[in-house]
Amino acid sequence: MMRLDTRDPGFAAAFESLLDTARETTAKVDAAVGEIINAVRQEGDAALLRLTARFDGWQPADAAALRVTAAEIEAAAAGIEPSLLAALDLAAERIERFHRAQMPGDLEIPDPAGLTLGMRWTPLDAVGLYVPGGKAAYPSSVLMNALPARVAGVGRIAMVVPTPGGQLNPLVLAAAKRAGVTEVYRIGGAQAVAALAWGTATIAPVDRIVGPGNAYVAEAKRQVFGRVGIDSIAGPSEVVILADASNDPRLVAIDLLAQAEHDESAQAILLTDDAGFADAVVAAVAAELEILPRAAIAGESWRRHGAVILVRDWEEAFALTNRLAPEHLELMLPDPRAAMAKVRHAGAAFLGRHCPEAVGDYVAGPNHVLPTGRTARFASGLSVFDFLKRTTWVEASEAGLQAIGPAAVALAEAEGLQAHGRSVALRLR
Amino acid sequence: MMRLDTRDPGFAAAFESLLDTARETTAKVDAAVGEIINAVRQEGDAALLRLTARFDGWQPADAAALRVTAAEIEAAAAGIEPSLLAALDLAAERIERFHRAQMPGDLEIPDPAGLTLGMRWTPLDAVGLYVPGGKAAYPSSVLMNALPARVAGVGRIAMVVPTPGGQLNPLVLAAAKRAGVTEVYRIGGAQAVAALAWGTATIAPVDRIVGPGNAYVAEAKRQVFGRVGIDSIAGPSEVVILADASNDPRLVAIDLLAQAEHDESAQAILLTDDAGFADAVVAAVAAELEILPRAAIAGESWRRHGAVILVRDWEEAFALTNRLAPEHLELMLPDPRAAMAKVRHAGAAFLGRHCPEAVGDYVAGPNHVLPTGRTARFASGLSVFDFLKRTTWVEASEAGLQAIGPAAVALAEAEGLQAHGRSVALRLR
Repeated sequence: MMRLDTRDPGFAAAFESLLDTARETTAKVDAAVGEIINAVRQEGDAALLRLTARFDGWQPADAAALRVTAAEIEAAAAGIEPSLLAALDLAAERIERFHRAQMPGDLEIPDPAGLTLGMRWTPLDAVGLYVPGGKAAYPSSVLMNALPARVAGVGRIAMVVPTPGGQLNPLVLAAAKRAGVTEVYRIGGAQAVAALAWGTATIAPVDRIVGPGNAYVAEAKRQVFGRVGIDSIAGPSEVVILADASNDPRLVAIDLLAQAEHDESAQAILLTDDAGFADAVVAAVAAELEILPRAAIAGESWRRHGAVILVRDWEEAFALTNRLAPEHLELMLPDPRAAMAKVRHAGAAFLGRHCPEAVGDYVAGPNHVLPTGRTARFASGLSVFDFLKRTTWVEASEAGLQAIGPAAVALAEAEGLQAHGRSVALRLR
Repeated sequence: MMRLDTRDPGFAAAFESLLDTARETTAKVDAAVGEIINAVRQEGDAALLRLTARFDGWQPADAAALRVTAAEIEAAAAGIEPSLLAALDLAAERIERFHRAQMPGDLEIPDPAGLTLGMRWTPLDAVGLYVPGGKAAYPSSVLMNALPARVAGVGRIAMVVPTPGGQLNPLVLAAAKRAGVTEVYRIGGAQAVAALAWGTATIAPVDRIVGPGNAYVAEAKRQVFGRVGIDSIAGPSEVVILADASNDPRLVAIDLLAQAEHDESAQAILLTDDAGFADAVVAAVAAELEILPRAAIAGESWRRHGAVILVRDWEEAFALTNRLAPEHLELMLPDPRAAMAKVRHAGAAFLGRHCPEAVGDYVAGPNHVLPTGRTARFASGLSVFDFLKRTTWVEASEAGLQAIGPAAVALAEAEGLQAHGRSVALRLR
């Protein structure tokens, strides 16, 4: 863990290195992924059967066996403890409500020149949802990826989830059922991405693929981009917490560790204006690491990438936060709304002392799929906007064209595009 | 040019091949681009000077010479013919007005459980605008790329434009001036993209790079993606025109050719329900090709990629249009609004007989940077949304956390993330 003080002469350089350190090295898998994609494009289902046996360690009997049946989904959901199903329900309702509020409206603008201009939002026809298998299979991520697509009005959601050794995660299926996803395939890796992008006899192609995955999945998404849309490639997760000395150090410590427990590449950073409070949080982190089940992972993340930065004042903290552009930001300050007004770049913000990030990870309503690694400078969390696209339109009357057409002709001719100019000019006569 | 009839037995296969034909092969330039980006990262301005001499054929005296001065911009604008400047002004005003109407509002949602949820839009800090040099330097594209960024509230717009042989295009500079762009560098290619992404002593880095370019520029944008945001990689342009026999065949022909004159890879497709009208349009295209200055390019595009498709009825035409998902769509039908309601996928639509696409290319107001190559299935034209990002936020009272916290704890424990659960549970006591 790095301790920094903005008053130290070496601070600027140390902070710069904190910003520039890549916390994860990306495996070089382009060629392997390219081969997998070609195999699926050329052989379709046959390639899926072969690659699933090879990478997931089970042999599907035939292409039909790749699809999870409705009965399997029902059985999985029926086996979940009712209190857990109720929690899933509460989360789903709240996520749906928030994303419904995001839905944008169409524009229709009458224009002084006599034209009408418009912009219309329409949902994508079909979306693919990649859900990681094994340990990283999170039902909450199924809700966070599928529900915005449903709310946006996407007609078809095809979910893929690898099942190492043939094992399905029942809570993932229960989340799929709750999110209204009925088309689920037990495939994963680059081969699943290829099948969603290009289609096979069994799996119809989609228009966009979302959801997290390992290096192979990320590279496959990069390679099919253009054929289909993709979401951004997520890096390791991070939190920045701004907390003054009036907070309980233990609460700040557990919030830092909730981030750190994701994986060793996660990053948790505290910014505070009180050196004694910083010490108390560091001690509380050590105490919590004694009892946490995932202490090995969280401890490694904290030692490698954690940071405690002592600031002169909060203005300085806001400026540093804007440079960090964190995925998650907790504002444990007396006036968190005023603080929020000073922060320009963050994926999601949590305001006040009663609002740990974990509330947002599960049940608050906003999406937990967020821009990582300083990309909140230009990127946003997953939303209904990921599942909608715009068509702009222009309607011109004869008089409208007479009003603005001559300017179009002048510009077209200046650009040397005479057919452009003529397409307008012929209508002006 | 391909003539198809939906009644022919071979139609489905022929239409499928029309959909799948790549009209452009992408040059393999990854390695060359990787070297250029590394050179700029390691050597900064020195690499820019060397690469500009090598690729653009002129030797900048020093790094300061890379910047176009305010006096040069003023002089360029002062030399433009007043009627052309007036056309540029009309276009800019209309583009600004339309994009201002796009600006979304923030959300603040009080929640029955006692939380407040929100979503806030903020502009990017800094954007890079790539403008191609030489023949493809279009002042209209400067307006279409820069004005939405200005309207969104982007603080800094850095424009790069290669100047082959040292020659600047005055109308491009005049458009930059009209769009409020004051930071212009005479650099291009992968080296310009690298400079915008990583920064040099002379050029501060930006957060997102937009604008069209050649294969090197496109590959450079791919390689810097993640460090900065990029816009989508545009392919060759296309138009689909739906026109019935009540139209003037010559107007349909010139609209098809306005698309075809862009370059040999452009595509123009007519869908009509009248064989005689189709013949008349084909004849009118031939007649126009006799007189158009860019007939060599337009003719080549029309012969290679043009298509005339005879449909049984308009429902069939709408279904085919949705599969084509064209960048531009002209609806030259008696009730274009009803037709528009049937089309789900198109970048931009032009309604009625008095609305050639060229109006939208220059002066209508909506953006002319649009999704090509069937990507309108999932992508949208350039807009203020490209220069804004969202931060979602959650504000929880103590009572609010009590209401929804237990569900978060249950889900966190089911996912095996105990620190997540504990960060909520400790606050519930």
